[in-house]
Amino acid sequence: MFGFELHASDGAARTGVLRTPRGDIRTPAFMPVGTAGAVKAMLPDSVRATGAEIVLGNTYHLMLRPGAERIARLGGLHTFMAWDGPILTDSGGFQVMSLAKLRKVTEEGVAFQSHIDGANEFLSPERAMDIQRLLGSDIQMVLDECPAFPATETQIESSLALSMRWAKRSKAAFGGQPDRACFGIVQGGVFPHLRRRSAEELIEIGFDGYAVGGLAVGEGQSTMFEVLDATVPLLPRDRPRYLMGVGKPDDIVGAVLRGIDMFDCVLPTRSGRNGQAFTRTGTLNLRNARHAEDPAPLDGECRCPACRKFSRAYLHHVVKANEIIASMLLTWHNLTYYQDLMAELRAAISSGGMAEFAAGFARQRQENDVPPDPDVSH
Amino acid sequence: MFGFELHASDGAARTGVLRTPRGDIRTPAFMPVGTAGAVKAMLPDSVRATGAEIVLGNTYHLMLRPGAERIARLGGLHTFMAWDGPILTDSGGFQVMSLAKLRKVTEEGVAFQSHIDGANEFLSPERAMDIQRLLGSDIQMVLDECPAFPATETQIESSLALSMRWAKRSKAAFGGQPDRACFGIVQGGVFPHLRRRSAEELIEIGFDGYAVGGLAVGEGQSTMFEVLDATVPLLPRDRPRYLMGVGKPDDIVGAVLRGIDMFDCVLPTRSGRNGQAFTRTGTLNLRNARHAEDPAPLDGECRCPACRKFSRAYLHHVVKANEIIASMLLTWHNLTYYQDLMAELRAAISSGGMAEFAAGFARQRQENDVPPDPDVSH
Repeated sequence: MFGFELHASDGAARTGVLRTPRGDIRTPAFMPVGTAGAVKAMLPDSVRATGAEIVLGNTYHLMLRPGAERIARLGGLHTFMAWDGPILTDSGGFQVMSLAKLRKVTEEGVAFQSHIDGANEFLSPERAMDIQRLLGSDIQMVLDECPAFPATETQIESSLALSMRWAKRSKAAFGGQPDRACFGIVQGGVFPHLRRRSAEELIEIGFDGYAVGGLAVGEGQSTMFEVLDATVPLLPRDRPRYLMGVGKPDDIVGAVLRGIDMFDCVLPTRSGRNGQAFTRTGTLNLRNARHAEDPAPLDGECRCPACRKFSRAYLHHVVKANEIIASMLLTWHNLTYYQDLMAELRAAISSGGMAEFAAGFARQRQENDVPPDPDVSH
Repeated sequence: MFGFELHASDGAARTGVLRTPRGDIRTPAFMPVGTAGAVKAMLPDSVRATGAEIVLGNTYHLMLRPGAERIARLGGLHTFMAWDGPILTDSGGFQVMSLAKLRKVTEEGVAFQSHIDGANEFLSPERAMDIQRLLGSDIQMVLDECPAFPATETQIESSLALSMRWAKRSKAAFGGQPDRACFGIVQGGVFPHLRRRSAEELIEIGFDGYAVGGLAVGEGQSTMFEVLDATVPLLPRDRPRYLMGVGKPDDIVGAVLRGIDMFDCVLPTRSGRNGQAFTRTGTLNLRNARHAEDPAPLDGECRCPACRKFSRAYLHHVVKANEIIASMLLTWHNLTYYQDLMAELRAAISSGGMAEFAAGFARQRQENDVPPDPDVSH
């Protein structure tokens, strides 16, 4: 059965465990993104070895290729991608906005063309839930309409109203799946009263967990934190809270401080494929010539294969030579860094040292390299 | 100390063990190609898990990037690429011919431009051995001049004469490195009397092992086997024999039948990255739509992760979606297939069943799919 237990809190930050029939997830948790049925450049055993207890799958990508019905015939997404832990699937709403062509939103749903082959597709709240059911997703997200940033208050208000009607239809379509969870998504842009309205309407419908959507789309970290300050306290204490598509390590620390339990982001995987590494002493671009003869490991405290077996000089070389092993090693490292950060956050909350941890984390980052600022997106 | 022991023979085929200070290599052996300091799309532990006991490194690629002196300063190639088993390095002769620009061969050596950045480079027999010493190679190859195919007898004879003078200089430059081996390379194209001359001159110089070069360059399998029939019997029985850059599974079976002990080829790794898989029931192109809903494993008898955990349908999907995991899984599978083939060949020779094994192997391949015929090259 699905369930959520809180074990400790420290200020607004909390730590606990999300129980699913496929395994427990310690929170705060980071979910690696397995977009199209694979966490890019990682085998499932390696994803597990980083400490990940749940991965995310993308409804949009999987509905287009290989197709939800096909995955169902092949035994579901867990079997298909050989990941036996829990899987959360998004609803496709965000990718339809960011990737699909000729998008047309109506009350019924959203018509669009596939970015892969231009095929005409349609996603409604009911279809989004049906796809997630076919995939066998453990945590299913309602379909929402994701407005572009920036948007006017009027645009956000109108989009929010549609998203709330879709949330109700999504929940009805989800129906009773006792071993699976359905999460609502709070929208409302950067407007506190719209976030409040959204949270209240979702709580009225009633969900197993509550996500905060529509952030990390360009509003900046301080605005994002303001939105969290205004939104998170409105959410039920006894339900998990998921900040979608976030983020950089300091985004995550700040969001955990504000009471968020779950995260997903392509940043560690995408950055890895781009030659960037998150380390305890700063963010490194391995393409930089200063690493060419450096025999030191990427991060002396890290337990991943990239750090235990290879030098920065080697990683520089394989990045420059476009060797696939560069993506493999840096992805493994970055995911390990993220999982270790989550473990440190859980420990800090358990011991009542969250504020101190967050302050130390911020100080350490100021003392070290200024991190690059790669795109953050789903 | 370097040494070679023969344990059994069956007809011309033999099985034994090549002893090196970094570990034993059971022969016949297949050496995965680690071109630029990495077996493409594989971590070293995974290469080892396929059954590989030695990998090959490319002098040409490594001298251009990151440079032999740099690798030496970083502790040598084994440390650099985190492979603690034996490494054989080629001399760069073949890649200079196939990849470099503005190649100019003189008695002294070969001047060329790097295919990476156009830099002027020079490779002589002495420099080739120096680079391999800097890399820390366990088995070093003499520099040879590799004529293009087809070539006239006069061209081959002249090229061969130069290669033999270079072999003598290479051996002198190798000098006394007690824990390392130096192999000569028999050239002579498709001309038996030139192959004989080459073998005799190399034996006169005296090497730890003898390679057969200049094959698998377009002459076809039957011609290649004829050259082996004419060449291998001339080589010392108590030294390992290495057929360079070969080849397809049936090339390997035929060459083992003719007394070859060692192989290297990019085919299993390159084919894997191109969506092709070698299996006990034929060669598959995973891009083909017929695999789209096939829940069967690639090869039901294979022990690799691609076969134990995933379906053909999944592999088809990740190949089509250009996911890095496709290259990772198919490379791992193909290398496992090659290592399992070598193990079966060793067992067949040990039990006196080599002819039967070869006949069964040929029959099985006729009964199954006609294999595609991808490019075979270094």
